[in-house]
Amino acid sequence: MSAKAARIRLVQFEVLPGRPVENTARMLDDLHAARADGIDIVAFPEMAVPGYLLGDEWEHEAFLRECEACVDELCAATQGLIAVFGSVGIDWTRRNEDGRVRKYNALFVAEDGERIGPEGGLYSFVIKTLLPNYREFDDSRHFFDVRKLALEEGRTLQEMITPVHTSKLRLGCLLCEDAWDSDYGVSPLEHLAQAGAELFINISSSPFTAGKNHKRNRVFSAHARQLQRPLAYVNNVGIQNNGKTVFTYDGSSCIYDSYGGQLASPRVFAEDRLTVDVPLAARAAFGQPLPGRDTGIDNICDAILYGTREFLKLCGVRKVTVGVSGGIDSSVVAAIYAHLLPPTDLLLVNMPSRFNSTTTRDLARTLAENIGCLYVDVPIQESVELTQSQLDGLEIRTPDGSISESLQLSGFMLENVQARDRSSRVLAAVAAAFGGVFTCNANKSEATVGYSTLYGDLDGYLANLADLWKTEVYSLARHLNEDVFGREVIPQGSIDILPTAELSEAQSVAAGKGDPLIYPYHDKLFESWVEWWNRATPEENLAWYVEGTLAEKLGYDGDIQALFDSPRAFIDDLERWWGQYQGMGLAKRIQAPPVLAVKRRAFGFDHREAQMGVRYTRKYLAIKKDLLG
Amino acid sequence: MSAKAARIRLVQFEVLPGRPVENTARMLDDLHAARADGIDIVAFPEMAVPGYLLGDEWEHEAFLRECEACVDELCAATQGLIAVFGSVGIDWTRRNEDGRVRKYNALFVAEDGERIGPEGGLYSFVIKTLLPNYREFDDSRHFFDVRKLALEEGRTLQEMITPVHTSKLRLGCLLCEDAWDSDYGVSPLEHLAQAGAELFINISSSPFTAGKNHKRNRVFSAHARQLQRPLAYVNNVGIQNNGKTVFTYDGSSCIYDSYGGQLASPRVFAEDRLTVDVPLAARAAFGQPLPGRDTGIDNICDAILYGTREFLKLCGVRKVTVGVSGGIDSSVVAAIYAHLLPPTDLLLVNMPSRFNSTTTRDLARTLAENIGCLYVDVPIQESVELTQSQLDGLEIRTPDGSISESLQLSGFMLENVQARDRSSRVLAAVAAAFGGVFTCNANKSEATVGYSTLYGDLDGYLANLADLWKTEVYSLARHLNEDVFGREVIPQGSIDILPTAELSEAQSVAAGKGDPLIYPYHDKLFESWVEWWNRATPEENLAWYVEGTLAEKLGYDGDIQALFDSPRAFIDDLERWWGQYQGMGLAKRIQAPPVLAVKRRAFGFDHREAQMGVRYTRKYLAIKKDLLG
Repeated sequence: MSAKAARIRLVQFEVLPGRPVENTARMLDDLHAARADGIDIVAFPEMAVPGYLLGDEWEHEAFLRECEACVDELCAATQGLIAVFGSVGIDWTRRNEDGRVRKYNALFVAEDGERIGPEGGLYSFVIKTLLPNYREFDDSRHFFDVRKLALEEGRTLQEMITPVHTSKLRLGCLLCEDAWDSDYGVSPLEHLAQAGAELFINISSSPFTAGKNHKRNRVFSAHARQLQRPLAYVNNVGIQNNGKTVFTYDGSSCIYDSYGGQLASPRVFAEDRLTVDVPLAARAAFGQPLPGRDTGIDNICDAILYGTREFLKLCGVRKVTVGVSGGIDSSVVAAIYAHLLPPTDLLLVNMPSRFNSTTTRDLARTLAENIGCLYVDVPIQESVELTQSQLDGLEIRTPDGSISESLQLSGFMLENVQARDRSSRVLAAVAAAFGGVFTCNANKSEATVGYSTLYGDLDGYLANLADLWKTEVYSLARHLNEDVFGREVIPQGSIDILPTAELSEAQSVAAGKGDPLIYPYHDKLFESWVEWWNRATPEENLAWYVEGTLAEKLGYDGDIQALFDSPRAFIDDLERWWGQYQGMGLAKRIQAPPVLAVKRRAFGFDHREAQMGVRYTRKYLAIKKDLLG
Repeated sequence: MSAKAARIRLVQFEVLPGRPVENTARMLDDLHAARADGIDIVAFPEMAVPGYLLGDEWEHEAFLRECEACVDELCAATQGLIAVFGSVGIDWTRRNEDGRVRKYNALFVAEDGERIGPEGGLYSFVIKTLLPNYREFDDSRHFFDVRKLALEEGRTLQEMITPVHTSKLRLGCLLCEDAWDSDYGVSPLEHLAQAGAELFINISSSPFTAGKNHKRNRVFSAHARQLQRPLAYVNNVGIQNNGKTVFTYDGSSCIYDSYGGQLASPRVFAEDRLTVDVPLAARAAFGQPLPGRDTGIDNICDAILYGTREFLKLCGVRKVTVGVSGGIDSSVVAAIYAHLLPPTDLLLVNMPSRFNSTTTRDLARTLAENIGCLYVDVPIQESVELTQSQLDGLEIRTPDGSISESLQLSGFMLENVQARDRSSRVLAAVAAAFGGVFTCNANKSEATVGYSTLYGDLDGYLANLADLWKTEVYSLARHLNEDVFGREVIPQGSIDILPTAELSEAQSVAAGKGDPLIYPYHDKLFESWVEWWNRATPEENLAWYVEGTLAEKLGYDGDIQALFDSPRAFIDDLERWWGQYQGMGLAKRIQAPPVLAVKRRAFGFDHREAQMGVRYTRKYLAIKKDLLG
C-alpha cells in the first residue's frame, strides 16, 4: 500500500441467511484471492457471516456459537491484509433486555490474523449505533444498543464511537443505518470524522426498494463531500425473508469520493468484486458522476425476476404451474417464469367454467404458444356442478331431528366455489403431480381490498406481483414484451382487454363488464393508505375531496368529479374499499402466500396489521356529516 | 381522603384496540361513577385509550390526533379525583428515529381537570422506561426510549424517572415492563422509591400466558416488600392481535402490600372494578396470602373459551361450522363452540371418504348428539373420484405438440386431494351458506412439523388449539367433559382412539395404525425447539442423547431407548421432524390462520420465522459422525 492510496476490494456476494458455514467458506476464498491480488482492504457486507433477516434464529445459542467460530476462522485468515466484515458480536457475560445472551450487530476488522477493535472500545468489534426498527427491520428485538451500553458503562458517545486504527490507516467503520442519520439524534459519521477517520466503510445488508439507490447516492455522496473523506459502501446480493415478506438485495456496492463522484459495481442483483485504488489525500476526485433516478419499471422488473429465481432456489423447486385465465396478472406471472425456466418446466393451466369467454380462453392458449411451454385445459364445470348439486339445498339438522334447515348457495358463493375449485382442487393437485409448486397471481390492488378468494386465487407458493398496483402490472407487461423478450410473449389482447374475474354473467367480457375497481384512481387512493410514509386515511382523503385537492394530493391524473357524480357516491366508494381494506382484505392477507417486496411498503412483515374491524375517526364522521347535510 | 389512606379503584375493563372514542366513553363513565363513590384515585390500564397491539396503526396521524383529543377529554373530567391511565404521548415538534412524529408509551395523571407530569419532567405525562421487544412486543418500533431522551436532553435517568406529585401523595407511576426490571440495566422502581414515591401504580396491557400470574405475584410482591410501599397493578381484559397471533387479556388486577400479601380482583377474563382503601403508612399489611401456581389446564381452558368468544365478536360472526372426524382435535373444537353458541348456531360436518371407519363416523355423530347441535354428513368420495379421473393420467403438452407427458397422482397426492376437498370445497361453501365461518382444528404438534394439508385441514378463520401440544389437547378434552360440561360431551371413544388422519389404508383405525408422531415424546422434543426461552436445536438434543440425559432435559417421563432401537433410528427421527419444522411446516405456517396464544411462545408474530431451508450446525454433524462412526 502506498502512503497515499489504499487498494480496496468490496465483495458483493450472495449471503445465505442462516448459513454461516457456507458464507464463511465463500469469504475465505475471497480472502485468499484478495491476498493474491495485492489488496490492502477487503470488505464484506453487514451480517455477511449469519445473514440478516433470520426471524428469531438469533435465539439459538447453537447458531451463535457457530457464527462465533466462523468469525474466528475469518480473522485468522487475514495474514497480509485487512478484512472488514459483519457478523453477530456476542458477549456471553452480559444479558440482553429479554434475558437472553447479549448480542450486537457488529463489524469486525482483522489484520494479520488479529482482531482490531475501535480505539478505546469495550470490545474487539465495532457496534452498530443506529438500529432501525421500521418496515421489515427488527434490530432492537435482537441487538443491544450503543446508547444503552454507553449508559451502562458511564461513557460518552464520543468515547464509544471511534475509528479502528489499522497499521495503515484509521478506518471509520459504519453499519448500514449508521450513515442514514438524518432522523437520529446521533451521527456516527461526525463522531468518526472528529476522531480522525481517514476513510469511511459502510457495510450494509440493505434490501432493494424502488428508488432507494437514487436516495443513497444523494445522501452518501453528500456525506463524503461534507466530511471530505471517501466513503465505501458494500452490500450483499441474494434474498432474505421474514416469513410473510421476501426481500431482494441488489448489491449496488460503490465508493463515493469527496467531490460528489462515485465508482460503482457495474453489476446489480449479481455477485461482483469492485476493486479501487482509493487516494487517501484529504480530498481526491476519482469517481464518475452519479447516475440518475432509478424508480422505473426496469429496476422493479429486475428485482422481480431475480427475487423469483432466488426464491425458487431457496425452495428447491424447479417446476412451476401457473393457472392462466387470459387476463393480465396471470399472463405476466407466466411470462416471468418463462424467462426463468426451460419451457418443459413450466406448465400453464386454463380452467374454464361456463362463464369463461372464448376470447380469454384463446388468449391463455396464445400465451402458452408464445412461450412454447407445457399447457393443459382443465374444465371445472362438472366439478362445480357436483358441488352445487351436493350442497345447494342440503338439509342440516339436529340429531334428534327437532330442528332442520336447508342450505342455499347464492350466486356470490358459487363464484367462490369456482375460484376454490380451480386453485385448491385442480392447481394444487396438478402442481404436485407435475413435481413443483403453483403461483399466486394476486396484485397489490387486489391484496389491499381482498378482491380475491381465500383458498382460491389467493393460493400459491409465492405472490411475486403482490407489491405492484394493477397499473404497474400493465407497465411490467409492456416492459417484459418490449425489453425483456423483445417480442409479444404476453398477448396484446391480454393487455387491451377489460380486467374481469369472469365468475358470473355479471362479469362478462363480451358485455364489456369488468372489475369494480377504477384502477388508475383506486391505485392512487390505496397508495395513500398503504405506501405513504405518513399514511393517509379517509379523514384526509375526504378533507381533500372537500377542498378540491384530492387528485393533486394523490397524484391522480384524471378528474375526480367525472368518477363520482355526487359527494354521496364518492363517500360510498371510499367507505366500500376502506371497509374491505381493514376487514376481509386483512383477514385474507393473514393467510396469503409470501409477498415479494419491491417497493417501500409491502404487505406482511413490512406492513404489520392487526384485525380490529373497520374504523373511522370522529373528524371523518364530522366532515361526512357536514358534506351530506 | 384521610391522611393515612387512599381509596383506590382499579378499572379492569375491555380495551378495544384501535377504538379510542369507544374506550374513552367507557372511561368517562367510570370517572363519573368513581366520583360518586368517593374514590381518590381511579386507575385504568396501559394504552387504555388506543389499545396496545395495533400493528402499524400508530403511523396514522389521524389516529394519533383522535387519541390526543380523547386524552384531553379524560383529563378535563377529573374534577374531585385523580385519574391515572395509559395512552400514546405525542410530541409533534420532534421526530422518532423512523422520521415519523415522536410517540411515547405514556401514562397520564390528571387531578381536578389538570394534567400532572412527573416532577421536573419534560412532558405532562410519564414515559415508559423499559420497552419490551420480545415475543409479540414491538415497543421500540413505535415508541421513543427514555434513555435516548435522557441523552438527547443531557439529563440523568434519576432526573428523568420521578414521581408524580398529586395534591394528596407522590405516585410512583410504572408502565407494565417498568416493574419487570431484572434483565434491564435500569430499575424505575428504585429511582421512584429514592425520589419518595409513596405508592406504586403499575398500569399494564399484559396478555395472558399460562403461568404468568404466578410469576407476577412473586416478582411484584417482592418489589412491594423490598421497597416498603404498596404496589397496585391494573390490567385490561379483551383480546388484541397482531394479525397472525391473537392474545387474550385476563385482567388479574390487584394490589400488593408491603408484607407480601395481595388483594386481587376476583374476576379474570371479565370486567371488574377493584376498590381498596390503601393505608399509606410506610408499611401496612392489608392483603391476603398469594395464591398458588396457575399453569393448569383450567386456566388455559378459560383463556381459550374467552379468546374464542371475543374473536367471534371481533369478526362479527355468530354461526360456526366445524368439520368433525370423530378424532380428538375436532371434537374439542366442537365442544368449545358448543359452550359459546346456541346449538342452532353450530353446525358439525362429517365428510367421509372410503377410508373413514364406521368407528370414527359414529363418534362424530355421537358428538353432535351430545351437543345437540346441527349436523350433516357430506361424503367426499364422488368428488375425490372425479378429481382423480380428471387429473390422474392427464396429458400436458406444448402447444405445438412436440413435448408431452402425463400426470400421475400418487397415493400421497390423493391424501391431500381428500383433505383439500373437505376444507376448500365442502366446508368453505357450507360455512358460507350457513352464514358464518369454519374452524381450523390444528394443534401445535401438527403446526410445528406441518402434519396437515395446506388449503385442506389447515384452512379456517381461527386456529384456537394451535398453541396446545397434542398431549395438552387430551387434557383439555378431559377438563371440558369433567369440569366445564360436567358430562361426556366429547365421546370417550374420541379420547381413547388412536389418533390418525384416515386418509389411506395405511392410516386405518381398524388396523390400529395411527399418526407417525409419538406424542408424549415428540411434544417434549418440539417444546425444546419452540417454547424454551433459550431454544434447543438438534445439536443440544443429540448431545443430551449421547450423554444419556435427554429424557431428563426434555422432561419426558418415558425411556428414550425404548422408543429408538439404535442411534441411527434416533437420528433419523430427529432429522425427519427438524426438517419438517424448518421446511414444509414453516411454509404452511406462513399461510395458516391466526393462532390463539395461550402459552409463552405461539406461532406467528410471537415466534418469528424466516424460510431458510433445513440447517444443522457443524457441531451437530460432528457429534452425529462420532456416534454413527
